[in-house]
Amino acid sequence: MTGIQKTENQVIIRNEEFITKAEQLMPQFLKETVRPQSIVKIEKDSTKIHGWGTGVIESADKLSAYDYGKGDQFTLDFGTHLVGYLSMKIRPVGSPPDAPLHLKLTFGEMPVEMAEPFSEYNGWISSSWLQEETLHVDVMPGVIELPRRYSFRYLKIEVLDTSRKYRVAFDDVQCLTVTSGDSYHVEELNHKDSMLNEIDKVSIKTLQDCMQEVFEDGPKRDRRLWLGDLRLQALANYETFQTNDLVKRCLYLFAGVPDDKGRIAANLFIAPSLIADDTYLFDYSLLFTTTLFDYFEATKDLETLTELWPLAYRQVELALERLDDQGIVTDDETWWSFIDWQEKLNKQAPSQAILIHTLRRAIKLAEVLKSDKLTLLEQKLQVTVDATITHLWDQDSEFFVSGSERQISWASQIWMVHAQVLDPEDNRKLIKHLLSTKPDIGLTTPYMYHYLVEALILVGEKEQAIAQLKAYWGEMINDGADTFWELYDPENKSFSPYGSYLINSYCHAWSCTPTYLIRKYDL
Amino acid sequence: MTGIQKTENQVIIRNEEFITKAEQLMPQFLKETVRPQSIVKIEKDSTKIHGWGTGVIESADKLSAYDYGKGDQFTLDFGTHLVGYLSMKIRPVGSPPDAPLHLKLTFGEMPVEMAEPFSEYNGWISSSWLQEETLHVDVMPGVIELPRRYSFRYLKIEVLDTSRKYRVAFDDVQCLTVTSGDSYHVEELNHKDSMLNEIDKVSIKTLQDCMQEVFEDGPKRDRRLWLGDLRLQALANYETFQTNDLVKRCLYLFAGVPDDKGRIAANLFIAPSLIADDTYLFDYSLLFTTTLFDYFEATKDLETLTELWPLAYRQVELALERLDDQGIVTDDETWWSFIDWQEKLNKQAPSQAILIHTLRRAIKLAEVLKSDKLTLLEQKLQVTVDATITHLWDQDSEFFVSGSERQISWASQIWMVHAQVLDPEDNRKLIKHLLSTKPDIGLTTPYMYHYLVEALILVGEKEQAIAQLKAYWGEMINDGADTFWELYDPENKSFSPYGSYLINSYCHAWSCTPTYLIRKYDL
Repeated sequence: MTGIQKTENQVIIRNEEFITKAEQLMPQFLKETVRPQSIVKIEKDSTKIHGWGTGVIESADKLSAYDYGKGDQFTLDFGTHLVGYLSMKIRPVGSPPDAPLHLKLTFGEMPVEMAEPFSEYNGWISSSWLQEETLHVDVMPGVIELPRRYSFRYLKIEVLDTSRKYRVAFDDVQCLTVTSGDSYHVEELNHKDSMLNEIDKVSIKTLQDCMQEVFEDGPKRDRRLWLGDLRLQALANYETFQTNDLVKRCLYLFAGVPDDKGRIAANLFIAPSLIADDTYLFDYSLLFTTTLFDYFEATKDLETLTELWPLAYRQVELALERLDDQGIVTDDETWWSFIDWQEKLNKQAPSQAILIHTLRRAIKLAEVLKSDKLTLLEQKLQVTVDATITHLWDQDSEFFVSGSERQISWASQIWMVHAQVLDPEDNRKLIKHLLSTKPDIGLTTPYMYHYLVEALILVGEKEQAIAQLKAYWGEMINDGADTFWELYDPENKSFSPYGSYLINSYCHAWSCTPTYLIRKYDL
Repeated sequence: MTGIQKTENQVIIRNEEFITKAEQLMPQFLKETVRPQSIVKIEKDSTKIHGWGTGVIESADKLSAYDYGKGDQFTLDFGTHLVGYLSMKIRPVGSPPDAPLHLKLTFGEMPVEMAEPFSEYNGWISSSWLQEETLHVDVMPGVIELPRRYSFRYLKIEVLDTSRKYRVAFDDVQCLTVTSGDSYHVEELNHKDSMLNEIDKVSIKTLQDCMQEVFEDGPKRDRRLWLGDLRLQALANYETFQTNDLVKRCLYLFAGVPDDKGRIAANLFIAPSLIADDTYLFDYSLLFTTTLFDYFEATKDLETLTELWPLAYRQVELALERLDDQGIVTDDETWWSFIDWQEKLNKQAPSQAILIHTLRRAIKLAEVLKSDKLTLLEQKLQVTVDATITHLWDQDSEFFVSGSERQISWASQIWMVHAQVLDPEDNRKLIKHLLSTKPDIGLTTPYMYHYLVEALILVGEKEQAIAQLKAYWGEMINDGADTFWELYDPENKSFSPYGSYLINSYCHAWSCTPTYLIRKYDL
């Protein structure tokens, strides 16, 4: 059963059978009650990320002993990153409350969110993601349960007003955490390298906190199923939680709402009902095919592969339509390929590489399915690889170039390695050349760092891969990461593509891959 | 069954039988859905109260046609004062919402609450009474139902943020009003004087909006059962709604939680459980006795009178303990008698008068009950009346004086008329002398204006009474009252005892009595 759904910018062809299948795969939730560990102060500290550190004042067990009046505030540290629902008991102290309590709660994944006022945020992403609430409590004593889900480690409570006749005390402040990632299947790593061990743990925690009704990109911001994140989460999941039905569910959700050309959206909204976002990204649509390939590799689930193959093939077909006469992805104003948040990055060459990377996987799936598309795909692979060498390889610089200005970027080289355009030995040379030359157009996200490290592994440079892993994700841990961050540039630690690091997500799916890299490749 | 309950400042002797009786008298609620009438602008207008008027932009039916983005706002006028619960549908316009909606709602009984920022409020009563909420909406389209009850005519909606990809539209903004005052028993007045007719209507609306689980003092602020308000609400109720069980319920609530001396608290908290406030007012405790008297007069409910008489008598007994050797209420730092919000008012003489006023009613109840206290009460009445004449009557000024500085106030004379210390003709002279002399220590609340108007009626000055009624409550209507206000000084219309008129209540129980005065005394 299909249905046509027109929105302002799209025509969606709903596949109700696929959507029903996805609904039936709704995961079970694991819940746990977590209490704060300490009452802390947030201190200016230039040695810490964003310039803010924390100092323990005393154990959070002491909280009940204090009462607070108008203008008072305190900050709780829950000890690690949490995703869940906050509740607390509020107890009046003094006369019966003769006026409501006016309270402000600020949730932060990082100390900076406790220290810098959200009112000063002026980035281009909506300020509504900043996690704060002001509320009135009319009936005390009583339990308040906040209906929204938060992603946080720190909680600042400010008493905006009580009355002259009473103050308030807080008991049983707690967070009911939620995840669909059951640790049951996760084996202890026990790596002899303690830093890799630690990176593995933080990766798994990051993935777990992003596993909800779908694989979310970040539980603080976006909270949404994005294809670029999904592919990496799924890879990490196969090595850890093995909640493979959640990957299957996400694939069916995407497959449930293609547009009238058969395009898979870059991301989906789940509530109040399934909606495909009107953003379509060249690379993300192709990652649907790649994610299906990875899923089949992990599960050998032929039924799902068979059902979703037509759409997976369609993404390749649509991408091939963007090839110009020379066999190169057309770079103009009409498209958007994500690749990375690097502002100056030209997307042509990495997109070309992603297309080739996808073609290789589509061919393998066509073989499994004995599809009549196999020959065509093989021809197209040859054509695009040849065109890439002819038009994008620059012999002088020994790099792939991108766009009319022949840009040399890290992303282009990395994706070309994944695409295996060159032979293995040349690939190895290319990546070593990249690391020694260090072109200006670098990487800004853990998402692209993942592909760098995996590229190093693929060319046999395991030691370099481990070194990069430690230099990037290890440094994030040194900088205080309980879960891995959406954005991290070791050279510019306040980097944000959104105009302020306040709005960055500090638990982000696409940063969870070290556990995959370490476990899959036995680093 | 009784139980002792110790709090920080009180020992309460709970009478569970009385409390159970009160619980069984929980009223039925009448609910009605009310929609806004107009989209309005709030305009500076020096001819209007507080300097703010409204202008209709267009019918609220047009609201759905508009959509709003970051920084946009609009104000709705519901056409009259409402007490109830707000709900609305929020519909995204544009792309699917990729970030929560951050919304600010401001509720106002008066235009000034829409115009002057609450952040500038700096009065001594808690700012938490100012009716505003900021909230995040995560799922759209959807219905939001605010859990708190509001008291308002105007609603300002400000869009703090959406995202760059969507705007929002508002459908079905509505208020589900609640009251326990059923208009079924209210007869049309059809007074030939249209102003009295109008005053009567606004009185009834005021009373109805204050009739909830108990007789509240004001649905915006305090929202609480106060004895001073209860007495007047009950009087107005007997002439209109005749929801006499609600009076009975309130009497039993007060009787359920006296302190260990038998004192009745000035007000009660109902939620989360019945609690006597730790405020005790000389006059308000005595009004328990008076309210029981009025209730018996209206209902002839002998069972209730019999059960509550010991406590009613106890209030008189306790008040008599405050008499000094001369038979005058001791005026020192240890007590608080309310009387009025007039800042400079000395409370001794009006309190003395209220004691006498109560003694006369206690005597009548003792007669009904054939109580052995009758003789004692009669003796005490004689002693206090004589002492009042001897020590508080000032022959030179021909006024009653109060306190060590022999203050001459309106409140003292008015309450002495009610106490009938002088004979009828001298009472008439006293009140006429008051109106012609106009002492400086005047009246500030409709509560005291009620006792002024009723005093005029009692001495036979009906025309003067009507003139005062119109000059005060009529002028409030001219100033835009949909319901009568807590505070009103025609000479100083921005008067507030709390530091700002923003926090004043504009629907207040103690201001609802004109309907009683008009109907009871056939004005």
